[in-house]
Amino acid sequence: MEAHQHWMRLAVTLAESARGQTSPNPMVGAVVVKDGRLLGTGAHLQAGTPHAEVHALNMAGDEAKGSTLYVTLEPCNHYGRTPPCTEKTIASGVSRVIVGTRDPDHRVAGEGIRRLQEAGIEVVEGVLEQECLRLNEAYFHHRRTGRPFVTLKTAVTLDGKVAAPTGDSRWVTGEASRLQVHRMRHWHDAVLVGVNTVLKDRPRLTTRLPEGGSNPIRVILDSRLRIPLDTPVTEVSEAPTWVYCTDEADPEKEKLLRKKGVRVVRTSSGPHVNLDAVFTDLGRKGILSVLAECGGRLNASLLREGWVQKVVVFIAPKLLGGKESPTAVEGPGFAKMADAFSLHDIHVERFGEDICVSGYLPR
Amino acid sequence: MEAHQHWMRLAVTLAESARGQTSPNPMVGAVVVKDGRLLGTGAHLQAGTPHAEVHALNMAGDEAKGSTLYVTLEPCNHYGRTPPCTEKTIASGVSRVIVGTRDPDHRVAGEGIRRLQEAGIEVVEGVLEQECLRLNEAYFHHRRTGRPFVTLKTAVTLDGKVAAPTGDSRWVTGEASRLQVHRMRHWHDAVLVGVNTVLKDRPRLTTRLPEGGSNPIRVILDSRLRIPLDTPVTEVSEAPTWVYCTDEADPEKEKLLRKKGVRVVRTSSGPHVNLDAVFTDLGRKGILSVLAECGGRLNASLLREGWVQKVVVFIAPKLLGGKESPTAVEGPGFAKMADAFSLHDIHVERFGEDICVSGYLPR
Repeated sequence: MEAHQHWMRLAVTLAESARGQTSPNPMVGAVVVKDGRLLGTGAHLQAGTPHAEVHALNMAGDEAKGSTLYVTLEPCNHYGRTPPCTEKTIASGVSRVIVGTRDPDHRVAGEGIRRLQEAGIEVVEGVLEQECLRLNEAYFHHRRTGRPFVTLKTAVTLDGKVAAPTGDSRWVTGEASRLQVHRMRHWHDAVLVGVNTVLKDRPRLTTRLPEGGSNPIRVILDSRLRIPLDTPVTEVSEAPTWVYCTDEADPEKEKLLRKKGVRVVRTSSGPHVNLDAVFTDLGRKGILSVLAECGGRLNASLLREGWVQKVVVFIAPKLLGGKESPTAVEGPGFAKMADAFSLHDIHVERFGEDICVSGYLPR
Repeated sequence: MEAHQHWMRLAVTLAESARGQTSPNPMVGAVVVKDGRLLGTGAHLQAGTPHAEVHALNMAGDEAKGSTLYVTLEPCNHYGRTPPCTEKTIASGVSRVIVGTRDPDHRVAGEGIRRLQEAGIEVVEGVLEQECLRLNEAYFHHRRTGRPFVTLKTAVTLDGKVAAPTGDSRWVTGEASRLQVHRMRHWHDAVLVGVNTVLKDRPRLTTRLPEGGSNPIRVILDSRLRIPLDTPVTEVSEAPTWVYCTDEADPEKEKLLRKKGVRVVRTSSGPHVNLDAVFTDLGRKGILSVLAECGGRLNASLLREGWVQKVVVFIAPKLLGGKESPTAVEGPGFAKMADAFSLHDIHVERFGEDICVSGYLPR
């Protein structure tokens, strides 16, 4: 079992290396091993290109006969944009397949494993299952709920402020943290803000890494379409922008935005954007993961309505003070400390001088 | 030099072990070594009892002849409540003394080292000097400024709240963090709060560790003596309580408090307690270290006026929300994020699920 974990860990590392480039597909890694010798490695790189198993089996070539294939996710058994991995595995003469976790996609869902077993291949399931589930937490959440996995990201001073009472917030955290935020944008399908952030900060919300990276779709919640026509996020040459509003929005403004290439979606007749409609739409559009970089009021609504799965807080070791300084989560708040949302699976990292705390909300 | 650091590290560990029990004396550790063999160990345990060097040299006995003595702080050269350590060192036949740092006390201040050298003993200074300075940061600060070293301690949720909008704050952090706060009370000479904390939480402000520990003096800032007569901190059988007020305080109330054994000090004629007067008085009374466990308004004043040297923030991995939830540092705050107090020498620890971040304010 320890050897299984060893090779599966390598498969997870391979899968993880392509984070940010596989969506709407999951990240998958695969390793081919025989007599304790590594014969093939592979990762799924991009939707529409070969799956991890195919790369690993190709690398192993004839040596794959009688080998063990480690794969982080159940091999597919259907024709999508590529042929089924089960057939490739069977044809390669693999004698054993070790699977990290089943694929909840309705076209797979145990059928891949069944097909392998039918062909006389031994299948071991659940090796490093937790790691494999965590690796594709967004994909699994999307398949389970039809909605994207939402990570609430914020940056605060040690005394919990996101900006000065004047609104000034440049910068809360140091360079290393800000670089990590750009990495996170590269990893996510979409980034979400409220229109107030657009008005106040004029952000681009793009991925600006020295080494490149892909831009997330920019999702703006803007009930009455107050978004300016000449703000960076309405320049869709950099990245798509989707604005969600209500029926109270001016149809003329909508027309002008559409003319600029912005997608405008009306979600409800009320004064506020209907978050259920937003996330349902995003899920249908194949958005697996959303990075919410919102202000305190919107963060409070997202949390209160249960849309957030993960929280990442960058803490700068400085004290700003200010009774009127805005904080990361506002709204009415809880009346009792004991009712606060407790996070679990807490992880603490340093980025330069800053401390980054992440954790998960209870399901 | 590496060997020097090795033995000095042991001396620091010995010194550190008596944290909370040596004040108003510094913590000191000593080690006697000859030919790479440990011959004696000692720590200063309590004011009025033998110094660390004496314990270590006694343990070494006749073996001390020709040995090296490691001591975290320059040996004293004056008769206090105990005879000078320099004489004991010379009489023991020690041939070399390795000193972590000089003692800034005006009765020592290099005189100890001079005396040893005069007696023909080789003296090496500055081994693990930073660690030795940090060890007695409160003592050094007190000797340098005449005022106590103030550590601002607070406990916040991940979104920076110290309590719900209702005031409910039981509990922000988990048991392990709260235990650590009791350890910190044991380490400090005094604990400081504003009267609002006394009114709201009715704290005892004592050290409640399973293994015992000593109680800090309870310092309450209460300009108009609003402190109730029947609140736990006015029961001075547990620990002394010193209340600092202004001339606006009612003399009758003062009399009643004094009758209960509470020390009452008038600091100024204005509406607010004069912090300079408070810390000057505490320094004169031999208080080396103060643990400030105050609310956001008083914290803001302490920081703004430059009375805080160190900050310790316990962060609970939970989200409370609330635009009106109180935060750790309030007051007016800074208008620009770039002006915030940056902490240095940041240290991150875990206590149970909580994260504890500590650091120092610029001098």
